[in-house]
Order: sequence, then structure tokens, then C-alpha cells
Amino acid sequence: MKKLKDRIVQDGRILPGDILKVDSFLNHQMDPELLMEIALCFKEKFKNIEANKIVTIEASGIAPAVMLGYVMKLPVVFVKKKVPSTMENMLVRDVRSYTKKRIYTVSISADYLTADDHIIFIDDFLAYGNAARGIIDLCAQSGSTIEAMGFVIEKGFQGGGDALRREGYDVVSLAIVDQIENSQVIFRENDD
Amino acid sequence: MKKLKDRIVQDGRILPGDILKVDSFLNHQMDPELLMEIALCFKEKFKNIEANKIVTIEASGIAPAVMLGYVMKLPVVFVKKKVPSTMENMLVRDVRSYTKKRIYTVSISADYLTADDHIIFIDDFLAYGNAARGIIDLCAQSGSTIEAMGFVIEKGFQGGGDALRREGYDVVSLAIVDQIENSQVIFRENDD
Repeated sequence: MKKLKDRIVQDGRILPGDILKVDSFLNHQMDPELLMEIALCFKEKFKNIEANKIVTIEASGIAPAVMLGYVMKLPVVFVKKKVPSTMENMLVRDVRSYTKKRIYTVSISADYLTADDHIIFIDDFLAYGNAARGIIDLCAQSGSTIEAMGFVIEKGFQGGGDALRREGYDVVSLAIVDQIENSQVIFRENDD
Repeated sequence: MKKLKDRIVQDGRILPGDILKVDSFLNHQMDPELLMEIALCFKEKFKNIEANKIVTIEASGIAPAVMLGYVMKLPVVFVKKKVPSTMENMLVRDVRSYTKKRIYTVSISADYLTADDHIIFIDDFLAYGNAARGIIDLCAQSGSTIEAMGFVIEKGFQGGGDALRREGYDVVSLAIVDQIENSQVIFRENDD
């Protein structure tokens, strides 16, 4: 998605350790008009996908997922990064975060992820794919089917996306960063 | 907002301890079309407000805030419920949660909340008003101005909204639950 890549080049910041920060428009401060364009781009990519629900993970997956739910007229469920004390009937899984070097627990109500569901998983970032692995496990627990996965930005050099593709998952990323070199972002050539 | 109140009556669940659960359409599973109608209702209520930014708090404030940002053409920033290790220049404040009986830390980048900002604060629920107090403090730290606050559901019987109104804040709630009696929700009469 050219407009997204242009925005990453224009407003993204590279921190020491090749960390790409997009918190001025995507995952802290958010540009709702860009999010709508992202949603329309995902909708076009998923036009042949039969899904009845969108699943995302808090917190920064929620904005693109809700916009996509709006344009695709589908409900959205967000997976929580904890096990809420006031919720029952939860599906639960531990996820290892490489970025934050810790293990966190993700959970979703079994009321909203069932064997009848065909889902599209949406998140802002795909790096090593650990959050996606958590979702795959929650879907397996519930008997639901993952029809596709969509990520706003994929860090191709961390390999999570290509591993998922090799396993047969339909993974769409609107901007794939293959390298960060001399504080420059180098995108993978793709048709997005 | 009649459609919201009808939806609360239809799909809300009352748990022991007078807890109102709306996790089938608002804060776990989300109905994006309802969220758009909520956003349009807020936009109408805030038509005389001069604001340049919407501020919300993760996680369940993000969806209504982003929809409102879209219809009002304003950027949205979400306050984090922790202090991220990879972010600098953060404004920080402790907030006491009565519901969860614990203290959590909220934070926002000082890059995205400044003395130039005139904000609308949006959240899904207003109960005792502790999250709102945290936002008020972050805004004071940054020198920004709170022009209005909008909540999808206010639990009137917990008093946070009326206290904020007495202090002069422009507080808009689209559904105010004044009582839960015999598992029935009783709404405050208002023009929403």
C-alpha cells in the first residue's frame, strides 16, 4: 500500500537497535483517515475470503480491526492480554514476547470464538509471529477456522510472516520492511 | 441515544453484584456499525466544541474514539495502561481502579499531548471517574485543555459523572444507568 509506505518513510522513526517507531500515526497517536484507507485496502485483499468475524489483539490492533469490521460489516472481537477477573468461560494461552522479553497471557471469551467462526485475524505489527501463534492456538481451542491474517506492517527480517506463509496461512501485510539500513527502511517488493 | 439503550436492554447481561456486562457488542466483541452510530451521536453533541485531538485509554476506549476521530477528522491518541519500555518522554500517573481493586499506571507520550492541544476525552464506561481523573492529571502535566468528555455508558449510581459535572466539565454520556434493580437496567431520563 503505497500511501502507507510513504507515511512510514515520512513519519516513522528508527531507534537504536533497528526499532521502527510509528507511534505518531499508527499505534499510540492514530490517524483515523489512514486507518480507513488501510481498512479499504484489506477489504480488497480479502474480497475472496469467506469470514464472519474479525479477531484482533489489544491494544493497537483494535483500531485497524474496527475500521475493517465497519467496511466489511463484520463483528470484531479483541483478544485481551490478561485474564479478566470478571469474565468466565475464557480460552487462555501464554505468549512469549521477544520484543519485551517476557511472557504474557492472552484470553478470549469462548462465547465469541466458537467452532462456527471463520475469522480474519488483524494486527498492527507482525514480527516473530508470536501473537499470531497465540491466536492460532486460541482458534484451535475453540474449533474456529482462520481464513486469513492481515497486518499493517510486517517486519520481514524477523521471519514470522514467511514462516506462517510456509505453513499455508493466507498472510497479507500492507507494508513489509525487509531491512533497516543506515536508518533507512527498505521495503520488500510486493503488489501492495 | 435510544438505539444504544435498546441494545443494552436487549444484549446487556446483569451479573451478581449489579455488574452490567456489554461484552457482546461494546468492550470485548464489538459491533462496528453501532460504534459508527455512537460516533455520529457524539459528533452532534460536540458540534460546538473546538478540539484538535481525541484522547482515549486502552483498550475498550479505542474503538469508539477512533470512529469519532474518523467522523470528526481528528487524530486520536490512546493512553497506555502501563509505561512502555521502548518509549521516552512519557507523562505518567497512577490510577486506582475500584472495580479491579488495584492501582495501575497510565502513560502518554508528551509528544502527542502538549500545551497546544484542546482535547475531547472518550471512553466506553464512566463509573467512579478514576480513569477520567488520570486523564485530567495527564492533561494538567502537559498543559493541554480538556474541552469535553464523552462516555458511551455512564453508571450514574457510582457518581463519577455527576462529580465531574459539578466541577464544570462538559460530560456527555450516551446512556446513563441510574440503577440496576431486579436485574433490570433503569436509565436516567436525558435528551440523549
